[in-house]
Formats: sequence, structure tokens, C-alpha cells
Amino acid sequence: NARFSLIAGPCQMESRDHAFMVAGTLKELCGDLGIGLVYKSSFDKANRTSLSGKRGIGLEKALQIFSDLKKEFGFPVLTDIHTEEQCGLVAPAVDILQIPAFLCRQTDLLIAAARTGRTINVKKGQFLAPWDMKNVQAKFTASGNPNVLLCERGVSFGYNTLVSDMRSLPIMAAMGSPVVFDATHSVQQPGGQGGSSGGQREFVETLARAAVAVGVAGLFIETHEDPDNAPSDGPNMVPLKDMRRLLEKLLALDAVAKSA
Amino acid sequence: NARFSLIAGPCQMESRDHAFMVAGTLKELCGDLGIGLVYKSSFDKANRTSLSGKRGIGLEKALQIFSDLKKEFGFPVLTDIHTEEQCGLVAPAVDILQIPAFLCRQTDLLIAAARTGRTINVKKGQFLAPWDMKNVQAKFTASGNPNVLLCERGVSFGYNTLVSDMRSLPIMAAMGSPVVFDATHSVQQPGGQGGSSGGQREFVETLARAAVAVGVAGLFIETHEDPDNAPSDGPNMVPLKDMRRLLEKLLALDAVAKSA
Amino acid sequence: NARFSLIAGPCQMESRDHAFMVAGTLKELCGDLGIGLVYKSSFDKANRTSLSGKRGIGLEKALQIFSDLKKEFGFPVLTDIHTEEQCGLVAPAVDILQIPAFLCRQTDLLIAAARTGRTINVKKGQFLAPWDMKNVQAKFTASGNPNVLLCERGVSFGYNTLVSDMRSLPIMAAMGSPVVFDATHSVQQPGGQGGSSGGQREFVETLARAAVAVGVAGLFIETHEDPDNAPSDGPNMVPLKDMRRLLEKLLALDAVAKSA
Amino acid sequence: NARFSLIAGPCQMESRDHAFMVAGTLKELCGDLGIGLVYKSSFDKANRTSLSGKRGIGLEKALQIFSDLKKEFGFPVLTDIHTEEQCGLVAPAVDILQIPAFLCRQTDLLIAAARTGRTINVKKGQFLAPWDMKNVQAKFTASGNPNVLLCERGVSFGYNTLVSDMRSLPIMAAMGSPVVFDATHSVQQPGGQGGSSGGQREFVETLARAAVAVGVAGLFIETHEDPDNAPSDGPNMVPLKDMRRLLEKLLALDAVAKSA
Repeated sequence: NARFSLIAGPCQMESRDHAFMVAGTLKELCGDLGIGLVYKSSFDKANRTSLSGKRGIGLEKALQIFSDLKKEFGFPVLTDIHTEEQCGLVAPAVDILQIPAFLCRQTDLLIAAARTGRTINVKKGQFLAPWDMKNVQAKFTASGNPNVLLCERGVSFGYNTLVSDMRSLPIMAAMGSPVVFDATHSVQQPGGQGGSSGGQREFVETLARAAVAVGVAGLFIETHEDPDNAPSDGPNMVPLKDMRRLLEKLLALDAVAKSA
Repeated sequence: NARFSLIAGPCQMESRDHAFMVAGTLKELCGDLGIGLVYKSSFDKANRTSLSGKRGIGLEKALQIFSDLKKEFGFPVLTDIHTEEQCGLVAPAVDILQIPAFLCRQTDLLIAAARTGRTINVKKGQFLAPWDMKNVQAKFTASGNPNVLLCERGVSFGYNTLVSDMRSLPIMAAMGSPVVFDATHSVQQPGGQGGSSGGQREFVETLARAAVAVGVAGLFIETHEDPDNAPSDGPNMVPLKDMRRLLEKLLALDAVAKSA
Repeated sequence: NARFSLIAGPCQMESRDHAFMVAGTLKELCGDLGIGLVYKSSFDKANRTSLSGKRGIGLEKALQIFSDLKKEFGFPVLTDIHTEEQCGLVAPAVDILQIPAFLCRQTDLLIAAARTGRTINVKKGQFLAPWDMKNVQAKFTASGNPNVLLCERGVSFGYNTLVSDMRSLPIMAAMGSPVVFDATHSVQQPGGQGGSSGGQREFVETLARAAVAVGVAGLFIETHEDPDNAPSDGPNMVPLKDMRRLLEKLLALDAVAKSA
Repeated sequence: NARFSLIAGPCQMESRDHAFMVAGTLKELCGDLGIGLVYKSSFDKANRTSLSGKRGIGLEKALQIFSDLKKEFGFPVLTDIHTEEQCGLVAPAVDILQIPAFLCRQTDLLIAAARTGRTINVKKGQFLAPWDMKNVQAKFTASGNPNVLLCERGVSFGYNTLVSDMRSLPIMAAMGSPVVFDATHSVQQPGGQGGSSGGQREFVETLARAAVAVGVAGLFIETHEDPDNAPSDGPNMVPLKDMRRLLEKLLALDAVAKSA
């Protein structure tokens, strides 16, 4: 019943300077608030809506920056991988490997990720029921790696819309793994802008409050100092300057949610 | 930003003794906790899944009992109506008229309810988007009655399942009416037991916590001393003996949700 | 395995002249094609999205026009009713009473309709699974009226959208009642235009072809000589001048669908 | 407006003997009926619900058998690939590369498949709107390969259920690529059997009829001589002995659907 940890950072790793700027801000904020921070960024956006979406700075550069961030700030880092080959390459540089939602049923990828021994954050597919995650979890544990985080990020609801079913949080918690709520992808509107996904930033707090009140081990929130000009997921990222107020409210709810 | 009010009671009015027993328990509980109580029961279950479902004790008996309850306990009472004719008959005996979700688009019923001058609690249809409630609300206000509560009770999600989209709470609040979250019908599984609707009582607290953390003016919770033997909605009602612990947790969340 | 019958007409009864014009056109067309015609119009649109939507010409006028239409053209007529009282008033003048989808669970209305002895066309609620219609059907049969048509008109799919699940046709046919496919309401976009429902007229043929190929006893198609200026349901009605070509194609599919 | 082609075969390549048996039967059947046949089998089921699901006979063996099948029967063959590396290995031995639905947004995989120059059959993700496939299609064409088939296989509808929206067929056809309807995966119930996916074989004909009547360039139907004992997708495969009757009916509908 510890307070929630925070997985946060900009959607994409944009540059060393940008990463250090955001990381430093989050590090200080989480230090002030007493929240455990996992720094998150993607080195590659492998499943952009359209071909013209920006992909990221690439594996090699990113791994070096992750190492440097860890050295500077001492926090664990998380990134998402998309192929079996990436698992071995990325694992030494990061603490948590993330399986994207679209890929949560790709057995070989899951096994390869499990075998690195790293903690895995696996996002629930938009096409899955919460109880289906038991089979996903079992692919990791049967591969010898029980360190799995189960992450809710919304379920398909008609076209170009996700809905967050808060029942999924206790259902997945009953599987024995820590449950993370991804508050920024849950407000995505997949494909909602034609050539890219839309988002409803204004509902991040709504869904995060709800999830924390139900009880989660972790919160996943992508953040950016200027979301409207971010290379990906701008419509759903939280402005960096709004994070303190948001987290303070969520911490207060978390304390009540987890009190006897 | 006052604390939430509670609309509670057994789904059906079963008998005078039963009504007084549940009402007395709720009155004492809400007095202890400092919660405003609206006592709710239906005199007729007009839309049972099958013809063999129990319908209720009828209008005349119920109105007398409502009057007696009000005299004894001093709380306002709420009941649902299903026809224009019932509006005029029922309004003198109750404080809030409720429009069932299936009927929230029946213009004549809405107008008749509005014209009684009573406060209206209108449930959002399982087939409506939150923003569609603006048209529903307008049917009341244009009929001269702005005293409307907008009530979320889940939206159709595939077959025999509802999902609670917490975004609906701020969307409806922005319409200027108090928003109520119906925590027991939101866990219904419509038609889920073949000849009757099922329910997931175990998720009432999950959804109620989420809604309160987002912020609501009212909570709607049906309760019964022995839900498994209740004549309707047993699978989703909360045992009367569990209400105190549930409300205490929700009150604590409410205080945080509404603090500056 | 007879060919499908057609339930068709303008959504609203607009005037005597308009009714006779559309009815005459449909009568001639169906005579040419050898299709059984049931003429449909509503005398009241009781569940418009907003209060400003046009309601119809009213009960009394409509009943007289229905009688005159029957005398002139000899076809059966269908209209929808919304209250128990209307059942007795309307039944003498029409051949088929229709229960609107939103009202398909209102027990008293169903019983009142059943007791008129008229054939009932009951639309499947947008919030129901196909198998749930067994309970709806049973409310009629248990009331002594087995003459029930079960009508598919789409199921809620996210917000402001319906989807037509063609599996519902054989599922409902297995209940022993003739199944009707409503091709024009199935392309509605409920509330999709803010203050009124939108529609996708361009997909009426798509869904009608699909339903006929699966096999239906009846097709329900609203039609108008100028849908864009019709008082209701314009976005989903089929232009009267397009009906011949549409029906010819559907008849050809029907013949194949029902051949040994 | 040619008649539909058929993509068919057992879900998994089980053995050389089994492949030749099924292929021979389908070859003869399609020859009799004058249908173009593409033989389909998977060499690897990379996204089984659970780890204990059978995976297939592997790449090397399968490629040899595909070559032998092509030599013996002269038909084109199709198989699905799951990684970029597989694209180059598999392409020489097959005529059509298939992108699984879960992977339809993985940009690198799409590009790698496109660059083989093979025709691509890409399945619409269960989480995508039909119009979102335009971005998927563009990833192929922008990579220099316009030979794309767009395949409908159902969209998420609540939990553990898919629904087939027949509007997707004309929407995708308007993108200029041939549209294929996958009649056997469309009746899947993802995760519906706990550790594996369920299926509703009894509705394959329903959905195939509907799709053909709307108009498709191709039909995708998995078939097996003993589906109940097949290593994967048994619940939704069509018994081989039922294929003739099914295809005869579909051909007759196709002829009508495509006539002037």
C-alpha cells in the first residue's frame, strides 16, 4: 500500500538537452513530493498512424542518453521495444522494458523481453478484456520472469475512441502484478486526426483521479514543456508546468484510497 | 463544492415495514456521517427483462408510504415515473421525479415531469453520448423547470455489458446541472442472466470511488439488507451492512477531490 | 421462403397530399415488382433529439388519412405508438403497431399493444443483444398475441454510432418470428448533428444488401421525395426516385438467398 | 467486377501430407466452380492467446512445402509474417505476404513487406476504423508497392467479441485496393475460451453472404477436415466438406451483387 510511483517523461526522446531538461524538472518535482520516479521516453515510434510521423532519434543515441540520465539523476528508466532483437540491445541500458499495447500478444517478443531479466511493463491491448491479461502475464512468468507490471491504457469503444474501464484495475491487480494506469494514452483518440491520433488532454486529470481513487501501484503520464509542438502524442501530453498541481491532488487521493 | 448527497434505498418498495426498516437505517447512518439523504424506491418496475419479474407494490400504496416516511424521517424522497399520467399523481408525494434511462428521450414524459415543478433526476440513456444530454436537459429547462440532476449509469459496451466513462461526469457538469453517479446500475449486466439482468456488486465501490474522485454532486446507491433475495436488481445492490464502511471511504475521497 | 415484404413510407406523415403522393408511387412500384407493401408513417415523433424537432401531424388527422390510404390503395398500414392509451386508439385504423426501439422494454406498453390483437413490429433496442429479444417476444406471446415481427435497427457502438451485426438476423429468426431489417435507421448517427440525429444514406444499400443475402422476411426503408428537406430522419431516408433500382437489386439477391 | 477469389486453407501448416490433402481438395473444388484459389497457411502462430497454444511447423519446413504445393497445384500461396527479417526469407517462396491485424500499424514491418515487391494482404486491426486503413495503405504505396489487399476481419465490440461492420467494405474499396473479407476470423471470440480464442463457426456463412452481397474482391476462409481437432482456430474454421455448398451459394450471390 505504498504511494504510487510515477512513470513520466516526454513521449519521444528528442535530444540530449531536451531529455535533461525534462528529467531535471521531474526529478526535482518528485523529490519535493516524495514520489518514486521512473523516467520514460521512446527512442523510436514504431507504429505512427502515418509514414510521415516523426520516428525518434534512434537506438544508439538514445541508449547513451539513458545511461547519462541515470548517472546524473539516479532514477530508473523505461523505454519501449518493438522487436526481439531490440530486447537484448536495450536491456543493459534501461531498468524497465515496455511492451506496446498493439504487441502485447506477440509471443516471441514477450519471451525475449522476459529473458532479459528486466522488469516488464506490458500495456493491455486496446482489443483485450482485462481478464485476458492473465494469459499475457503467464507468457512472462513461464519464461522465468515474474517482474511484470500490467498497464491499463484504454479499450476500443466504437471508432477512433477509447474508454477507460476502471474495473480493469482490480481485475488485473488480482493477478498479483502491480497495476499501472496510463493516464495520457487513455485519452488518445486513435486515428482521430486523420493522419495522426488525437487526444483529450483535458481529461487526463479526470481519469488519473479515478484510477488513483480505485488504487494503482503506478501512474504513467507523458509530459512535455510544449505539447502542442511535440513530435508525437502532443494532443494527450500534460504540460510540464501543470504536473505539480496534478500530482499533489493525486497524492492526496492516493493517501485516502490506501488508508485502512 | 459541498460534499456529495446520497440517493439511496431498496430498488423496489417491498412493504411498509421493509421501507421503514431500510429508511431508518439509512437515516441514522447519514446522520452520523453528515450526508444529505434522499430516500429512493420504485413503486413499479416497468421495464423488467421478462414478464415474470416482480413489478412492485403499486402506485397508491407506495405514495402513502412515501408520505409516511417523509413525516417520520424528514428526508426528501425520490421515485421513478414511466408515463405522463404518473407525473401529476406522484409529484405531490415526492421531492424528486426520476426519468428512467430508457425513457430519457421521450419528450412528452419529460415535459410532463418538468411541469410538476419537482426536481428531476434524469438518467443518461445507455445509448447516449454524454454531450447528447444537453438536448435532454434543454427539454426540461425549455419547459420552465431548471431543477435537473443529470445521472450517469453506464453506456452500452458490446452485448450485455455497460462501461462507465468517467469523462461523462465533467462533460455533464459543464452543462450547469448537478451530476449524480449511479454506482449500482452502472455495474448491471443488462439481460446477463437470460431472463433477468445480472450485476457485479463487487465493482460498486470501484466505480463509486472513481466517480467521487472525479467529483460528483450526488451518489445513487441501491441497498438492501439481503440483496440475494431482493425482488429486483439483487445482483448489483449493496448490502445495507456494508454501506457505512463504503460511505466513509467515499466521504474521505470527496473531501480531497473538492479541496482547493 | 417467400420474397421479402417491404415496410416503407416517409418517416412522418406530413399531410394528406404528401401521404397519397408517396403511397401512390410505392404502390405502383411494388405492384410492378411483385413485392408486398406495408405503408409506414409516424403520426408523432415522440423522441426527437431536441424539443425543436418537428413532431408530426397528430393522432386524429393521421388516423383518418391511414383509413383513406387503405381504402384507396388496399395495402396494410403500420405506425408506431408510444403510450398504452394510443394502442387502443390507433389499432382500429392500422394493421401493424410498431414499438419504438427505446420502448422495447416497457412492459405495460407491450402488453397493451399485444392485447389489441394487431400484429406487432418491435424494434430491437440499441442497448440489447439479439438474444435478449426472446424476453421481449415472450411479453407479447404471454399476453396472447404471437403475431410479432422482430426488427433489427442497429446496436450502440461507441458514441453517436450504430453498427449492424448481421448475426442478429439468424439469432432472432431462430425465435420463430419473422425478422425485419430496418435499413434506414441502421445508418442513423444518433445525436450526430448536435441537436438532431445524423445519418449515412449512402450506406442504406450496403446494409440492405447484406441483410437480404443473410435472409429476412421484411425490409423497412423510409423514403421521401426530397429527404434533405424532410421534417425528420432526412439524413438517412432514401430518395423515392432511387427505390426502384434498389429494390430490383435486393429482389435478385433475395431470390438467390432463399433458393435451395 | 470479376467474381471473388478465394483465399483458403488450414489455419496452420500442420504437415506436408495434411497440406497436400487440403490443397488438393480445394484445388479440385475451385476448379469445378471456376474460382481463383490462393492457398493460405501459417507457418507460425506468433500471437496465440497463451503460451501453450501450438505454434506451427516452422519457417524452413513450411517454405519447402509451399514451393512443392505451388509446383504440384499451380496456385499462388499466401502466408503471414511477423517480423522484418521474415519478409525477405518468406517472399521468394510465396505470392502474397499477409500482415496480421495486430501488426497492421508496425511501420517497419509494413515497409519491409512492401519492399519484397510481393502483393500484401493487410488485415484491418480490430482497433481501427475503416477510414484509418488509408494510412496503412499509404505506408505500402509510399514504399513503392501499390499491390495491396485490404482485409476486413471484425472490429472490437465490448469484451471478447468482434462485430463485422459491412460499411467498412465500400469505405475501403474507395481507397482503390481490392477488399477481402475474412469470414472465419470475423467470427472469432478473442480470448473467449480463457486460454484460447473461441469462435462461432455457425455464423461464417451469415457474414460471408453479407459481405459478398455488398461486394468484395476476395473471400478469406480457413478450412479444415476436422476443425474440432485442429491445432488453432478450430472453433471458427469451416469443415472442408461444407465448402462446396457454401461457395456455390456465395458465387450465386456474387453474380447478382456484381451484375449491372
